[in-house]
Parts: sequence; structure tokens; C-alpha cells
Amino acid sequence: MKVGGVPYRAIFTERGGTEVRVIDQTLLPHRFETIRLETAADAARAIRDMVVRGAPLIGATAAYGVALAMRTDPSDASLKQSLALLASTRPTAVNLRWALDAADALLRPLPPGGRADAAYDFAARLCEEDVSRNHSIGRHGLEVFQEIARANESGTSRPGPRAGSKNDINVMTHCNAGWLATVDWGTATAPVYLAHDEGMRIHVWVRETRPRFQGAGLTAWELGQHGIPHTLVSDSAAGHLLSRGKVDLVIVGTDRTTAAGDVANKVGTYPLALAARDNGVPFYVAAPSPSIDWSIEDGANIPIEKRDPEEITRVRGVDEDGVERSVRVTPHGTRAANYAFDVTPRRLVTGLLTERGVCAADQTALRTMFGRPQMPT
Amino acid sequence: MKVGGVPYRAIFTERGGTEVRVIDQTLLPHRFETIRLETAADAARAIRDMVVRGAPLIGATAAYGVALAMRTDPSDASLKQSLALLASTRPTAVNLRWALDAADALLRPLPPGGRADAAYDFAARLCEEDVSRNHSIGRHGLEVFQEIARANESGTSRPGPRAGSKNDINVMTHCNAGWLATVDWGTATAPVYLAHDEGMRIHVWVRETRPRFQGAGLTAWELGQHGIPHTLVSDSAAGHLLSRGKVDLVIVGTDRTTAAGDVANKVGTYPLALAARDNGVPFYVAAPSPSIDWSIEDGANIPIEKRDPEEITRVRGVDEDGVERSVRVTPHGTRAANYAFDVTPRRLVTGLLTERGVCAADQTALRTMFGRPQMPT
Repeated sequence: MKVGGVPYRAIFTERGGTEVRVIDQTLLPHRFETIRLETAADAARAIRDMVVRGAPLIGATAAYGVALAMRTDPSDASLKQSLALLASTRPTAVNLRWALDAADALLRPLPPGGRADAAYDFAARLCEEDVSRNHSIGRHGLEVFQEIARANESGTSRPGPRAGSKNDINVMTHCNAGWLATVDWGTATAPVYLAHDEGMRIHVWVRETRPRFQGAGLTAWELGQHGIPHTLVSDSAAGHLLSRGKVDLVIVGTDRTTAAGDVANKVGTYPLALAARDNGVPFYVAAPSPSIDWSIEDGANIPIEKRDPEEITRVRGVDEDGVERSVRVTPHGTRAANYAFDVTPRRLVTGLLTERGVCAADQTALRTMFGRPQMPT
Repeated sequence: MKVGGVPYRAIFTERGGTEVRVIDQTLLPHRFETIRLETAADAARAIRDMVVRGAPLIGATAAYGVALAMRTDPSDASLKQSLALLASTRPTAVNLRWALDAADALLRPLPPGGRADAAYDFAARLCEEDVSRNHSIGRHGLEVFQEIARANESGTSRPGPRAGSKNDINVMTHCNAGWLATVDWGTATAPVYLAHDEGMRIHVWVRETRPRFQGAGLTAWELGQHGIPHTLVSDSAAGHLLSRGKVDLVIVGTDRTTAAGDVANKVGTYPLALAARDNGVPFYVAAPSPSIDWSIEDGANIPIEKRDPEEITRVRGVDEDGVERSVRVTPHGTRAANYAFDVTPRRLVTGLLTERGVCAADQTALRTMFGRPQMPT
């Protein structure tokens, strides 16, 4: 999407497709810089240091990492080494593992002389598939938006005050399921960008998303750069806004969707879904098929990652002089626990927005839509 | 309660009761300092600049502000002037207005020579009543805690995993309804301190409470100083903790309770109540009778204050060198909205902990317990 009026992707190639650049997301929202990845080690570092983040973008970066290795040295040893290096960066990332396994299966049988081109082609195809999948999610989500906007206009929307909004639709989102987490469009944001491009008057409530402030730092930034009207609120304000009729629809991303439709996503998603349900507001999850884990049904069995407590006790930002600093907001030595995700049970999910259409969050509907357990191609 | 092992109140007198000191809460949790209030203007400044905060403490500080004015100049003009000055500090604070009206009614008929003593007596009585009221809330809350602890021990507690906790009871709270918001004990924290003093193994989950971090800064500080085991979490983590059986009971304060039992409190209370309900965890509100607004029934009619958006976009804390700084966590110019409170409907409240006992959150029960609409005496 656009940055300062110029279209960007979160990862892209230059100079005939051999040079790879990514946006350095560790600097956002305070500085916008792209950096060049020249080697597999550069790609691995970018993933490990969260220069790039978001499952689809991590997979694409890893695929380009293999291509960079093959350009310099297409030997079996180089292939093996680059795959191992990239796999070690974020051990639990499903898309990362899948991309590397697929690259391995594709490249190993080839003569070394053909590997570089094939690896670049593979990485480029992975990116195009991500863009296309997100665009499809956007089209299906846009239909949902349009239906709600029509109901608002005709006065047949759910009961309760609409708070005199001048917008066709007020959407709330959590964390960053935006284009910065993918190659382009994002998942939860794809229908937002499409709606904006089609001239709908859309307004987004952005939850700041403690502890890492990905809503405040990334989602607010990308929406602002593309010109989408939005308002940042504390995570805790969602209940109030929903109860006073100021939200027409909630849409979030997902880190893992179970085969039965439970949704593991950034912590805070579950209470948001409860507040939406309590006020009769639709709660959608943008769930590209690679996010579906067909091996697990009950979300209660998903282990929840605990991260560094310093993300709770300290906050990073820029001071009045633009200098980046970290400040402690707690008493010295306060014990904190940092749960990174939670699980939203399927009973609270109005629908899963997949690339194949809107799907009920239930096992039969998911199996019917996707045929059988599968990994993305 | 204790600070570094020494018992303190949030406001107290020295030198035979004529000098007034308060804890400077703007410096917490990074520095502990008390400051002396010498004049009504000092008291007014302390309230306006949030050196003191919390409805009961604001009322007590205002009452001492009048006493300080009467000590210097007990004339009619001085009385009128000090009342007006103090009333202008936080125009919407109910306890403030009530304390000043009561002081006026008491002092005006008196000869000037008798006003100073009467004003000091009045302020001291106001403080003692607050302490006594909170202590009563604590006793009633403690009984609730003990009942839950017994059920935990006998295995007859609500279904679901108890997560192998070694504590007798795991309590979650929001914001600061602690002794720093009152003269002593606090409201939501009163049963916590009593339980700890009685040797219960109690553990408190403290929500950080964006945007002002009163949980991270004040509640974590006061619990830590008194030696109460606690763990700080992001506001968004409450749903996860509740769903995994890690919370036995939620207890929060209230800024205003309607005659029908709806509760206006710091934003984020309502989604917390929803998450407690969804997991069968009791949700109690510590509601001293002065917090009950007998003039209003439906919480949906309570206007919700919007505060400075900079509380959302900027965060205050101390850097590595202990220097206090404010950092921006958003892109420059991001629009933010800062809703300070929300309303929890009575259907989500397990019980109101009042100084007279545990009361159902409903109009008839409240009327039965308190007889008739009244203001505190």
C-alpha cells in the first residue's frame, strides 16, 4: 500500500529482481527506512531481529533468503546451510517452516546451475500468492462491509444508537494484521483498503495493542500513510465504544485457527470478541488458509507463549527531541507476566474471512470450504 | 498501610494536628515524598495537580483545605473564598462538593473564633469515617475471600482447572482502588490487606490500567510496599488468565454506582466483567455508600469523560538513568480518543461490597440495605 503517496510492498526486489529490500519495521512508526538484504544471513537477521514480522512476511523473507544464498553459491552445502540458518530464526513460525521445506523440495533435485533462478521464481510466486490471497479476503470482506453500510443507511441495522456517525462504516481492529505483516494488503486490513479505494467513508478504531503497541505503532502508521481515517484508542476503551454504538464491525487477524474454528491471536482478542457479542456487533476474523492448523481442534489446547516481562514494565518511544528511549512505568523490580496471545472460542466468531469466502467458524464449514486438511500451495 | 515497613495514611496531620501532609502521588512509583499543605491554596493545588486523587482522598484534602484557611483567617470572607477556590479544582468530583457543602453548613453559623477547631475536627472525622468505612468493606470482602478459599481447598469451587496454584486465593483488580485513593485501606484493596494480615496466602493480578498506568504505577507500588504478592499484567491479558483458571475472584472499585447497581469505573472494567462472567468467576465491586448516586438508575445515561489524547499517544516513566521522561509511541500527529470510564451493567456484578455488607447489584437490594437515598454522614 502507499507510504507518503508511493505504493510499497513490505518486501520487494530491485535491479531485475535479484536485489531484495524490506521495510525496517523496528524503526516504525518513528522512521521509515528500507534495507537491502544481500545474503541469507541478512535475511535471517531481519527475521530474528523483527525487522520483518508477521507470518506471511516471514515466509516470503525466508524464501528470498534461500534465493540470495543460491545466487552466490548454489551448491548442496550452501543450500543446506542457508535452510538451517533461516529455520533457526523463529522456530515456531509455521509459514517459515513451510516455505523452507517447499524450497528444499523444489531446489534439491535441480542441478546447481538452475537453482538460483528457480529459487527467485519460487520466492516471487510465494509473494504473489500472498498478495492474491489477501486481495481475495479483501473482496469477501468488502461485501460484508457493503451489506452493513446498506443496513445502516436503510435503518435496518442492529438495534441501538448509531451515535450519529457520518461514516458509512466504523470498523475496529486489534494489533497489526495489516500490509506490514504480509507482502501487501494485509489480512484484516485488506477489506479496509478496498473499501477506501471504492470511495466508502470508512473509519477505523485502532486499539493500541499492549504491550508492544503494534496498533499504535504499525496499524496507525500504515492507515495514516494510505490516508484511511482512523482513531487510536486504548485496548480497554473497546467495551465502551461497542456499548455506545460506535462500532459497526470488528475485524482482526489470526496467528492460528484450529480445524474447528477457534482463533489464537494477539492477547486481548478474546475480551474484544466478548464485548462485540455482548453488544450484537459482528466479529470477523481474517483467516487466510495457511493460518488454519488442521492438526488441532480445541483452542484450549494451544500453548500460549509468554514473552519478556520487560515489554510490560518498560515502554519504548521517542522523546520530545525525537530520540528513541525506553522508560520504566512500574516500581523498580515489579514482577510482571507477559502473555502474548489468547484464544477466542468459535462461538464468539461471526465468520472467518478466507480467500475462498466467508466461512462459519465450525469444523464442518471449514472442511466443506477447503475440501480436506491441506497446506497452502 | 505500610511504606517501607512504616504505616502511612494518604493524608495525615502533624504537630498536634494542625499541619497537614499528603503523599505526592505524581511522583509515584518512582519517588516517595510527602509534602506539607500550609494553606487552602496548597490544598487546592494538590487536588488540581493530582498530587492527591481518588474521590475519598479528594474530599478529605478539601476539608483540611478549609481548616487551613480557618487557622489563618476565620472570617466570613476567608471561608467563602476558600470554599470557592477548593470547589473549582475538580468540578465533577462528588465527594469534593459534598465535603465543602458540609463544611460550609457547619462553619458558617459559628463565631469566627470557633471555626478553626471545628474545621479541623470536621476534617479529622471525615478521615476517620473513610477509614472505618473501608475497613468494614474489607471485613465483608474478607468473608467472601475465605469462602472461596474454603471452596478451593475442598475442591468444591467452580468447575475448570485451578492451574495448580499454591495460593489460597488469586484476586484480580483494575486501576487503583487502593489506600492511595482513600485515607487508608482503600476500597477494593481493603479485603486484600486484611486477608494478608490474617495470614491467607493471597496473590493479586494487577492490570496495568492504560492509559495512565495507575495499576502499574500505584497499585503495584502500594501492594509491593505492604508486602502483598502480586503480578503485573497488561489489561488485555485478563481474558486469557480468567479462561485458564488462574483467577478466583475479580474485585474493582467504582467511581459512581447507580441506584439500580450499574457501575461506572475506570475504562476497561466492563470488558473485565464480561470475561469474568464468561468463565464463571465472581466479579465484585467495592462500593462505599458515598459512591452511590441515588439520582440515576440506568448506567447508560452516565456521561463518560474524555481526557487528553496525549495520555494515549505519550507514556511517562523513568529512563535507565532514573530521569523522568515522556515518550511518544505513535506516529507524529496520530488522532487518538481517550475515554476515561465505562459502565458495567448490574447483570455482570456478582455483588457490591459496601460498608454494610455484600449487596446484590439491584435497586431493591440497595434500597433495603441503605433505607433511602442519602448522602454520607
